[in-house]
Amino acid sequence: MLTLDHHPSGRHFLQIPGPSPVPDRILRAMSLPTIDHRGPEFGALGLKVLAGLKQVFQTEHPVVVYPASGTGAWEAALANVCSPGDQLLMVETGHFATLWKKLAERLGLQPEFITLPGTCAQTGLPNAWRHGVPAERIAERLKADTGHAIKAVCVVHNETSTGVTSDIAAVRRAIDAAGHPALLMVDSISGLASAEFRHDAWGVDVTVSGSQKGLMLPPGISFNALSPKALAAARTATLPKAFWAWDEIVEMNQSGYWPYTPNTNLLYGLHEALDMILGQGLDVIFARHQRWAAGVRAAVQAWGLPIQCADPAVYSPVLTGVVTPEGVDADALRKLIHTRFDLSLGTGLGKVKGRMFRIGHLGDCNDLTLMAALSGCEMGLKLAGVPLAGSGVAAAIAHFAAHPAPTAG
Amino acid sequence: MLTLDHHPSGRHFLQIPGPSPVPDRILRAMSLPTIDHRGPEFGALGLKVLAGLKQVFQTEHPVVVYPASGTGAWEAALANVCSPGDQLLMVETGHFATLWKKLAERLGLQPEFITLPGTCAQTGLPNAWRHGVPAERIAERLKADTGHAIKAVCVVHNETSTGVTSDIAAVRRAIDAAGHPALLMVDSISGLASAEFRHDAWGVDVTVSGSQKGLMLPPGISFNALSPKALAAARTATLPKAFWAWDEIVEMNQSGYWPYTPNTNLLYGLHEALDMILGQGLDVIFARHQRWAAGVRAAVQAWGLPIQCADPAVYSPVLTGVVTPEGVDADALRKLIHTRFDLSLGTGLGKVKGRMFRIGHLGDCNDLTLMAALSGCEMGLKLAGVPLAGSGVAAAIAHFAAHPAPTAG
Amino acid sequence: MLTLDHHPSGRHFLQIPGPSPVPDRILRAMSLPTIDHRGPEFGALGLKVLAGLKQVFQTEHPVVVYPASGTGAWEAALANVCSPGDQLLMVETGHFATLWKKLAERLGLQPEFITLPGTCAQTGLPNAWRHGVPAERIAERLKADTGHAIKAVCVVHNETSTGVTSDIAAVRRAIDAAGHPALLMVDSISGLASAEFRHDAWGVDVTVSGSQKGLMLPPGISFNALSPKALAAARTATLPKAFWAWDEIVEMNQSGYWPYTPNTNLLYGLHEALDMILGQGLDVIFARHQRWAAGVRAAVQAWGLPIQCADPAVYSPVLTGVVTPEGVDADALRKLIHTRFDLSLGTGLGKVKGRMFRIGHLGDCNDLTLMAALSGCEMGLKLAGVPLAGSGVAAAIAHFAAHPAPTAG
Amino acid sequence: MLTLDHHPSGRHFLQIPGPSPVPDRILRAMSLPTIDHRGPEFGALGLKVLAGLKQVFQTEHPVVVYPASGTGAWEAALANVCSPGDQLLMVETGHFATLWKKLAERLGLQPEFITLPGTCAQTGLPNAWRHGVPAERIAERLKADTGHAIKAVCVVHNETSTGVTSDIAAVRRAIDAAGHPALLMVDSISGLASAEFRHDAWGVDVTVSGSQKGLMLPPGISFNALSPKALAAARTATLPKAFWAWDEIVEMNQSGYWPYTPNTNLLYGLHEALDMILGQGLDVIFARHQRWAAGVRAAVQAWGLPIQCADPAVYSPVLTGVVTPEGVDADALRKLIHTRFDLSLGTGLGKVKGRMFRIGHLGDCNDLTLMAALSGCEMGLKLAGVPLAGSGVAAAIAHFAAHPAPTAG
Repeated sequence: MLTLDHHPSGRHFLQIPGPSPVPDRILRAMSLPTIDHRGPEFGALGLKVLAGLKQVFQTEHPVVVYPASGTGAWEAALANVCSPGDQLLMVETGHFATLWKKLAERLGLQPEFITLPGTCAQTGLPNAWRHGVPAERIAERLKADTGHAIKAVCVVHNETSTGVTSDIAAVRRAIDAAGHPALLMVDSISGLASAEFRHDAWGVDVTVSGSQKGLMLPPGISFNALSPKALAAARTATLPKAFWAWDEIVEMNQSGYWPYTPNTNLLYGLHEALDMILGQGLDVIFARHQRWAAGVRAAVQAWGLPIQCADPAVYSPVLTGVVTPEGVDADALRKLIHTRFDLSLGTGLGKVKGRMFRIGHLGDCNDLTLMAALSGCEMGLKLAGVPLAGSGVAAAIAHFAAHPAPTAG
Repeated sequence: MLTLDHHPSGRHFLQIPGPSPVPDRILRAMSLPTIDHRGPEFGALGLKVLAGLKQVFQTEHPVVVYPASGTGAWEAALANVCSPGDQLLMVETGHFATLWKKLAERLGLQPEFITLPGTCAQTGLPNAWRHGVPAERIAERLKADTGHAIKAVCVVHNETSTGVTSDIAAVRRAIDAAGHPALLMVDSISGLASAEFRHDAWGVDVTVSGSQKGLMLPPGISFNALSPKALAAARTATLPKAFWAWDEIVEMNQSGYWPYTPNTNLLYGLHEALDMILGQGLDVIFARHQRWAAGVRAAVQAWGLPIQCADPAVYSPVLTGVVTPEGVDADALRKLIHTRFDLSLGTGLGKVKGRMFRIGHLGDCNDLTLMAALSGCEMGLKLAGVPLAGSGVAAAIAHFAAHPAPTAG
Repeated sequence: MLTLDHHPSGRHFLQIPGPSPVPDRILRAMSLPTIDHRGPEFGALGLKVLAGLKQVFQTEHPVVVYPASGTGAWEAALANVCSPGDQLLMVETGHFATLWKKLAERLGLQPEFITLPGTCAQTGLPNAWRHGVPAERIAERLKADTGHAIKAVCVVHNETSTGVTSDIAAVRRAIDAAGHPALLMVDSISGLASAEFRHDAWGVDVTVSGSQKGLMLPPGISFNALSPKALAAARTATLPKAFWAWDEIVEMNQSGYWPYTPNTNLLYGLHEALDMILGQGLDVIFARHQRWAAGVRAAVQAWGLPIQCADPAVYSPVLTGVVTPEGVDADALRKLIHTRFDLSLGTGLGKVKGRMFRIGHLGDCNDLTLMAALSGCEMGLKLAGVPLAGSGVAAAIAHFAAHPAPTAG
Repeated sequence: MLTLDHHPSGRHFLQIPGPSPVPDRILRAMSLPTIDHRGPEFGALGLKVLAGLKQVFQTEHPVVVYPASGTGAWEAALANVCSPGDQLLMVETGHFATLWKKLAERLGLQPEFITLPGTCAQTGLPNAWRHGVPAERIAERLKADTGHAIKAVCVVHNETSTGVTSDIAAVRRAIDAAGHPALLMVDSISGLASAEFRHDAWGVDVTVSGSQKGLMLPPGISFNALSPKALAAARTATLPKAFWAWDEIVEMNQSGYWPYTPNTNLLYGLHEALDMILGQGLDVIFARHQRWAAGVRAAVQAWGLPIQCADPAVYSPVLTGVVTPEGVDADALRKLIHTRFDLSLGTGLGKVKGRMFRIGHLGDCNDLTLMAALSGCEMGLKLAGVPLAGSGVAAAIAHFAAHPAPTAG
């Protein structure tokens, strides 16, 4: 029988930036018996989760739910609005922006990649992987596209590989300033329900998201939130699509059902997650993540290690990238911490592999969980011989004691 | 908090032909905490389930696991081996064969549909929806395709909408007899792990399957089992593909990981399912389903109602379609049984809607579960005023008492 | 890791008269993390379950909850109100009445046993084990006790070993008619929450009950519901008592706590059970059990086997004892049914061992669960070669189809 | 439906000295369906847990399992070997020793209480509540009892109210040195399976224990481990006993069953606990607790607060009592920490109420759990305005980083 107990005692601390720790309440809901996805109980469940999702995305328009993980929702977004050879404008903010671009290329599209040039003198890391989306460069590029060949601007809201949360409203303003008809497509897989996100108010046409981050579910469900403009674009786009096609799903969803077998037990979990999230209020949740992030950054700064995000205006409330000194293999450090203290930290991905690790502070956490994680990091850094300027744990204690958690109302 | 208790007391009986009842042991495994899909524990899990799946598909070649439901695996099969405009030979065996054909059309392919003509005098139902795949007609058609324009023959192994299990080995023989290079692609979504299926021995190139039937999992994982010929075809096929692309998945799977976030908690469930299935042995499981099916058919015959499958050679071991007398709305009957006896039966789909219901006898069942289901049907039929020739329950009791269950060794 | 899966497929059918099948909702509640039994959350839980219990016992007076199984509550009832050597009047209604008498003897009390003499011509079983409490004989005996030496009358409400539910109000009337001050102590371990029971209205002084029957919990909690007269008697009784002593418990309970560590996780389950039971209403639940019992008796009568309870006025709604023909070993039959059909039936206890089996129809059941159980019995009886007059299953189908389940309001 | 989520996010930290945190694996086992306690599966389970318990108690003699919480096992130990009016020699080591003495008095026994006189100058606390059992005073008293009127010596192994673990082998030596036939009865409710304990080797006659500490179960099961001498004494003792009587239980246990309904689902949990504990080995577990205790004491000492246990030779590996400065209400501090950081700490009991809190470090813990708990304490102490000599968290980090956890083999 399956056991995941690889340490002799106690609970694992999962502090990667997703999958985030799943609350017991959600795990329990997911273990309810599977029911008939064509029966009346299922329809009622479907309507309820679809209504709740709109509140989380802050939209009045349809949210499409896929029984698939997040990469599928990236593909779905593109497959529904694009035709073969369409041009896209994308921005290199890190590993996931890069993967989305590669996916677009595999679909036969032509993405153009805006990149901040150069590397950082302090850390040696690429500047593009330490900053947010430069809205002004998007505006410039769109203004130059007088023929309106660019079909969509695609950006990542919260770059999970770097800990940078870009200003999406600014991207919308840039597109509008350029008077360009491009769609705005946003990956908020790791931002949704943790970092502020407003699909309608920010003028997003397609938001791509997933279950395993702020929604506190296991991976396996993903989303496309749509605008009327995106729905209109889908009607004429010619990339082949079937599983991902919005039209049948949106229509069937009106009665709470799906055109093909949905992900029953993950939808049970989604039901619970929505209950928990909407019961507390999104603003309380956003403030909670900001407070956690500030405490974790206080620790990193006390250690004297660089925070990967170089621009305080776009620090992520969801995760913090910690750059290790040259010569310290961040993955060897992570392995030591995992083996010794039963704590999982996020690995460095792509261009920053081995040079950083990521501390997730999202979802089902609390102050003491983060104190545990920071303690594990500090012990690991010491054991790895990394010289520290001071105690990050002490700094976090000072922060969390001084700042009470936000509460509703 | 989510509750699915719509009846005041007792357990729901889920006797639809999938999702099948999920064993508690699997539901529990699925509710273990989500872990880091890039950590060492995950890699070990990945290797174990991939090895187990090969045994279930009876193949030595790769089995690709998608974090997506079954319709996705249909699309994946086609997207990997086809190029735009490719011709396919498909067979109308029922609703799911029809849906797969429509999906092929949406992808820009050209499926040709072999159909058994006419309707049945006794029931008024289409003959095509009461019989299996006519291998000889496939042979004929392929022989006529001297230019080898047909890329693949696509058939459904166990038609979930009709209760017909076609002879796949015969289809392979037909292709070979025609000397045609077409790939053989088989949907065994509802056949795998309940009805005998041999991917390698039967010369299947792509088997499409899913989690929510014989594997006794909730929906949300699906599969493509591959042959070397299919893998070769994928290298030159030009339909755009990214999420579904086999190449990266097969490569990453060698170390137990996936190129994008896998469906962690459903993989926990899959681990348990494989343990349970391989621990008993496939042959015992196949025999068990055959015995259940015979008991259920004995009941239907005693009631004097037609079994939807008109050909005893291809009776499904997984489900039995029961045709209601003209004038009796099968869905009203199902609703009555659901309301009164907390029993879910499968609805009639597509061309047989309202004229039949389906009794699932697969997965986590036993004799008494089926006796409960047949009792619910018999009470419902009586309450609906359907004249019965005799007691199906008595016939099933006679059958199950007379035939001991198969055991291993 | 623990597994209870002794059959290769499907769920076990537990149709013994307790422990009854525990609803998933209760099992899940019981698996919530254990909390501090001195913390504020616990106090709130304590107050809630204590209030709910009063409703189930239909009393306005204290209900004492023991972290112990039912035998402990028998002892508690006696230990609190008796002094060494006290006389008790008890009635032999079956195995559990006999065990309670033996327990009284071990405590140094002097129970007198009223017994219906003789054996039944048809079945050879003792008459006392086929009938209810004879209230008139209690009245007689008490009238003869002019010195009021008898401290208490102790009777079993629902005899789990025989399927007889005695008339408790009649016993109270008998005591009153005799003008006797004896306390009325009632074991309703298997009656509470399934068969009608009214602690206050029926003038019961101590009701003993347990968790694993109508409350649908696992064993491990038991109860003493008290009257003011019982509380007064406890103040002067001199049997040594500490763990069982009501005084400290009743006092601490006022704030929702217990003087020693309570049974935290079973109390979680009790919370759920009370929610489920009181949400439906006791009268609906009582009617539901009566209907099930009538269906099961219809089956037994159709088989032509004697129902153990010889008096239709006191048929138990909770269980039905089935007497096997002489020469048929009821335990061998039970074993055959368990092995072949994964169905547990109750064994014959004490004086009826080997001559009967018991079908439980209580708690988390429904019509189809009982049809499954009756099917298993009928198949087992056939396989054991027991000649049957007819089909019990057919009789039960006729009964359940003809009688809709009771609903609230 | 029951929810225990009183904080908006994250898991509760339960760091009281019992109930200890229950591993998920045990909670899951406990939620398996309840089975027939007279069926064959149950008998096999019974034999397995009874054998495992002997290993944990380090005895070759019977261990009696009660479906009752620990106070019941205290009563059982006395009720089986004592006769009315028997003299006992007990030692005031704290709150639980005092409660056991009161229980003995309620049973009509005559306990004599050895007490270390005076109060501590530094803390104002009673000396008796800061030290272990003084074996030499027991020896003296027994030597003076030349008539051998004292039936038993009763001591607490690990005083949960003080964090003192007494030397039980020394007590046995004292009894032997006095040449006295008194039985040695030991409460190791909170010691068993966390602190070294050897029933046979240390010559204990009755060990009383419970489920909710080192065995990592919820409360509800308790134990009496017996010696042949205790079994012999029970044959002639005359206190009334029924529920607690060893004789029937020991006899029925030979086949894996109990004379009355056992605590099925807690026994499932016990099965898992034994698997986990014996799989690791007791010595590894004892060393693990010693290491944790040393880390926690390093923190308390760094804060400059007195450890309640005044004698380093008897520091408890299970919990550490922390004495708060005069004027600081320890319960107000605990409440602040609970409210703000979702951490439960143990309250001061009896004579030390309000003057101390207890940190549990037992059962399903690990280094990071303790770091979280110590961080919560340190933040709470700061917020309560308690002046600290230094950072306890920093001291614990230094300790845990410097000392690797013990491993088997």
